[in-house]
Amino acid sequence: MEKCRLVFSGAGGQGVITAAIVLAEAAALHDDLNAIQTQSYGPEARGGATRSDVIISDTTIHFPKVLQPNILVCLTQEAYNKYYSIIRPGGLLILDSRFVTTNIKAAARQIALPMYQTVMDTIGKPIVFNICMLGAVIGISDLIQPESIIKVLQTRIPAAYLAINEQALRLGMGLGEPYAP
Amino acid sequence: MEKCRLVFSGAGGQGVITAAIVLAEAAALHDDLNAIQTQSYGPEARGGATRSDVIISDTTIHFPKVLQPNILVCLTQEAYNKYYSIIRPGGLLILDSRFVTTNIKAAARQIALPMYQTVMDTIGKPIVFNICMLGAVIGISDLIQPESIIKVLQTRIPAAYLAINEQALRLGMGLGEPYAP
Repeated sequence: MEKCRLVFSGAGGQGVITAAIVLAEAAALHDDLNAIQTQSYGPEARGGATRSDVIISDTTIHFPKVLQPNILVCLTQEAYNKYYSIIRPGGLLILDSRFVTTNIKAAARQIALPMYQTVMDTIGKPIVFNICMLGAVIGISDLIQPESIIKVLQTRIPAAYLAINEQALRLGMGLGEPYAP
Repeated sequence: MEKCRLVFSGAGGQGVITAAIVLAEAAALHDDLNAIQTQSYGPEARGGATRSDVIISDTTIHFPKVLQPNILVCLTQEAYNKYYSIIRPGGLLILDSRFVTTNIKAAARQIALPMYQTVMDTIGKPIVFNICMLGAVIGISDLIQPESIIKVLQTRIPAAYLAINEQALRLGMGLGEPYAP
């Protein structure tokens, strides 16, 4: 596989850091890949937009920061405004269609998905928005096995919440799969 | 302040990643510092010992990985065996006295604290072991304000668990403070 560099961005509390950790753990512990996961906090973090980076590779990863992501996810307008310009040319930009509107032409494939709306209509709990987003990412990119995500969720999520997390993952995959290459 | 580089190490499930994220967020969002937090997963992560890195600074942080920590925490023997050699000469090595025994002379100040035992004797719930560890770190190092940690916990921990987390933090500070410079 080619090295895949991802940036998940959004507002504090939307769970982008958790989503990144779940993805990195799933890749490394269950898909036999290497992964590194980073977040940095500076004056910009105090301003609002949060970002979390993941690199996944089957070879050693030397530099842990993502400069140009292959996959950039933006869950809020503020995160989009701040980060859309870092996308790798030819990369994939995944947006939540409720929270982000855009007229800018990026040098990337731009996919707006109703992730938040689908979670709210079907499950009614915003806390699994981040896992729906993760489902969309792996539905589109086929980056890792969904079962690997579920194995990680089983170790991290209280049993009572596991079913809605798995449902959110499947919903996201359903939204993403039509866009798979 | 001087740049402080920390590595928290232990076994999966002990919460070293969460502790690192809480510390980084507290430093950046409430103590007006910059912070970066990283974890990498490779073949060694599949073997058992987990590690999570944090850098805290009042200036810009350029390289996000910790090569030689000023503060290294080891919560298991396996983590200790694997990581004790990376400590920065003159650094601080904090061990859990129940899980780690050592006869090796490190070029560091070595402090073994009964963190796990104190949590179990006083609170009886191992899930707050990681927050007790965080309390010990800030009790010894005075790195950031304890109130900043509590503010982050308030946003991340369900209300029902907040009291035992705060208690664990105070217990850890009590264990650490006698060793403050």
